Amino acid sequence: MITSFKPPQRTLMGPGPSDVHPRILEALGRPTIGHLDPAFIGMMDEVKTLLQYAFQTENALTLPVSAPGSAGMEACFVNLIEPGDKVIVCVNGVFGTRMIENVTRSGGEAIRVDDAWGQPVDTNKVEAALETNPDAKILAFVHAETSTGVESDAAALCALAKAHDCLVIMDTVTGLAGVPVKVDEWGADAVYSGTQKCLSCTPGISPVTFSERAAETIRNRKTPVQSWFLDMNLVMGYWGPGAKRAYHHTAPINALYGLHESLVMLQEEGLEASFARHKAMHEKLRDGLAEIGIGYLVDEAHRLPQLNAVMIPQGVDDATARGRLLNEFNLEIGAGLGDFAGKVWRIGLMGYSAREENVQLCLDALKAVIK
Amino acid sequence: MITSFKPPQRTLMGPGPSDVHPRILEALGRPTIGHLDPAFIGMMDEVKTLLQYAFQTENALTLPVSAPGSAGMEACFVNLIEPGDKVIVCVNGVFGTRMIENVTRSGGEAIRVDDAWGQPVDTNKVEAALETNPDAKILAFVHAETSTGVESDAAALCALAKAHDCLVIMDTVTGLAGVPVKVDEWGADAVYSGTQKCLSCTPGISPVTFSERAAETIRNRKTPVQSWFLDMNLVMGYWGPGAKRAYHHTAPINALYGLHESLVMLQEEGLEASFARHKAMHEKLRDGLAEIGIGYLVDEAHRLPQLNAVMIPQGVDDATARGRLLNEFNLEIGAGLGDFAGKVWRIGLMGYSAREENVQLCLDALKAVIK
Repeated sequence: MITSFKPPQRTLMGPGPSDVHPRILEALGRPTIGHLDPAFIGMMDEVKTLLQYAFQTENALTLPVSAPGSAGMEACFVNLIEPGDKVIVCVNGVFGTRMIENVTRSGGEAIRVDDAWGQPVDTNKVEAALETNPDAKILAFVHAETSTGVESDAAALCALAKAHDCLVIMDTVTGLAGVPVKVDEWGADAVYSGTQKCLSCTPGISPVTFSERAAETIRNRKTPVQSWFLDMNLVMGYWGPGAKRAYHHTAPINALYGLHESLVMLQEEGLEASFARHKAMHEKLRDGLAEIGIGYLVDEAHRLPQLNAVMIPQGVDDATARGRLLNEFNLEIGAGLGDFAGKVWRIGLMGYSAREENVQLCLDALKAVIK
Repeated sequence: MITSFKPPQRTLMGPGPSDVHPRILEALGRPTIGHLDPAFIGMMDEVKTLLQYAFQTENALTLPVSAPGSAGMEACFVNLIEPGDKVIVCVNGVFGTRMIENVTRSGGEAIRVDDAWGQPVDTNKVEAALETNPDAKILAFVHAETSTGVESDAAALCALAKAHDCLVIMDTVTGLAGVPVKVDEWGADAVYSGTQKCLSCTPGISPVTFSERAAETIRNRKTPVQSWFLDMNLVMGYWGPGAKRAYHHTAPINALYGLHESLVMLQEEGLEASFARHKAMHEKLRDGLAEIGIGYLVDEAHRLPQLNAVMIPQGVDDATARGRLLNEFNLEIGAGLGDFAGKVWRIGLMGYSAREENVQLCLDALKAVIK
């Protein structure tokens, strides 16, 4: 007989999920109502307004996709790409690689611009690719690489794309609410994020925003979007704009209560204060790590404060150390991926995890397991 | 300033979501842990075992898709269909129509077998379609049509498909836990359901199960699955079978706590007892409706006990009546779809909604608004 699951109380300092604030956990358990209930539709409008605030955009087509960040990514690619479209994809980590998969599975042609993992996207290489591919329709890049903790220069990449008349698809799953994400100022056309990073919410929902130019591109497609579930032409009928709400799929009601609460909290704190808190906690962690001889993978200029990719000290076994952190300290940090497996740890300071107690626990626990 | 959302306390007797049991709401708010945490992976194994129980199957590839039922549907179609494949699709309601969309968007050719909405799928027509299309690869049908409350003869349809060497895709979003769903006995190859119906859980997750024959078909594809997010070759790497758990996407942790709890409750009650409860509540509702002159859309032999499509009495305005039920009784029932809009109500008795108090409330409230 299988019984109720009682999860342990962990401190989550990996690449996500991050610690979920008690207010958000409480919101998840509120009474379920219908997805066409007028009360729910009012909440949906608030979620859209709050997401516009988080993304710093006035895009009407700003909403939460009813599935994790990977589905938000897929929503951007399948809606904008038609068979044969050329897409320049910047690859400097796991999520750039996943973008390539999305392009080819959507029938597009991917032009790959590679940079070493741990480095930001090189704008010179991108400019060269745009010049040699004047027929490219889209430039796709990862603003905040979750696999390496690198921030790329989103403003410069968007400007290059505009200068070459390309649409921009931008991944900021780990960026949103941790560092500035200026969708309108930069001119990014299709942007996706996740709830389980700097929004401190549970995983499972992907906020997305599409510029008017992107929405127009979707409305004018010659071929149907290959995914029925992610077809924005249909999703728009439920999420608006406009008063009429046509049933498309059943929204994940309680998960959206959680997202709403996390966005209310972000608005209460204020975007700038949230960025400042992530930066302050990052500096505190960085200084503490330096004292115990742990250095960073990424150059200071390109580090995401919320995702600290650090070098595992020589002589320390990765799996053993992370196992001890989990079992002795209930602390989760992330493993390295790809070539960095066994060499790098990823320490998240995202959302509710970006606070003094967590930094202190992490430093104390690391001190204990690496000695 | 937008503040926390406090939903009203409704009684949910529409086509889903159904009332969520307090134990499940409580489970949703338990502490979030990581998607690669050994404690979480233990819970995943339990969810798989419990889903096998619910689906009455030993299929190893039985798991919850991290998105609503529509995505579960899409997972079945995009994984089994390759461009040019012929699929016989039975259409007797909204969800059969949606299957057609899924076939064509996956590059398949849909052979449509229509029956009137409110009627079950006609096995003679299906047999004829199988005979005139010996090259068909798949037969797809809806076991329990949420749009009309009709149950089709799944055993007979699966047998026909087997006799003609076709794979079966079956929609039982509204069926699971409300009426018998015998995946192995019937020989259905790819089956999807939802959490927000007779499992009484919140919406957002889609349980699916694939037979070994379906899994083999997926492994031997000549073309990649068009959806990266739903590619079962990749999802299998995270959900097993096998001990190694490769990161694919971040699982919706807390939503899965809810599903786990709902499945534990189903196991405690027992499948047969759950079916009997749905049937008993249906009969009580039916008898009460008869007393106030409300009859059914569907013939008795093909009615789903958990979804009662009933005729709106003459002279009663649909929207006004449902508005009063919601505003005066906090009771949600469902509208009719398509040709049945304004003519039919859909009264759900699913999961935790299938209890005496709900039936009584519904009868009392209907009496008040139709007089």
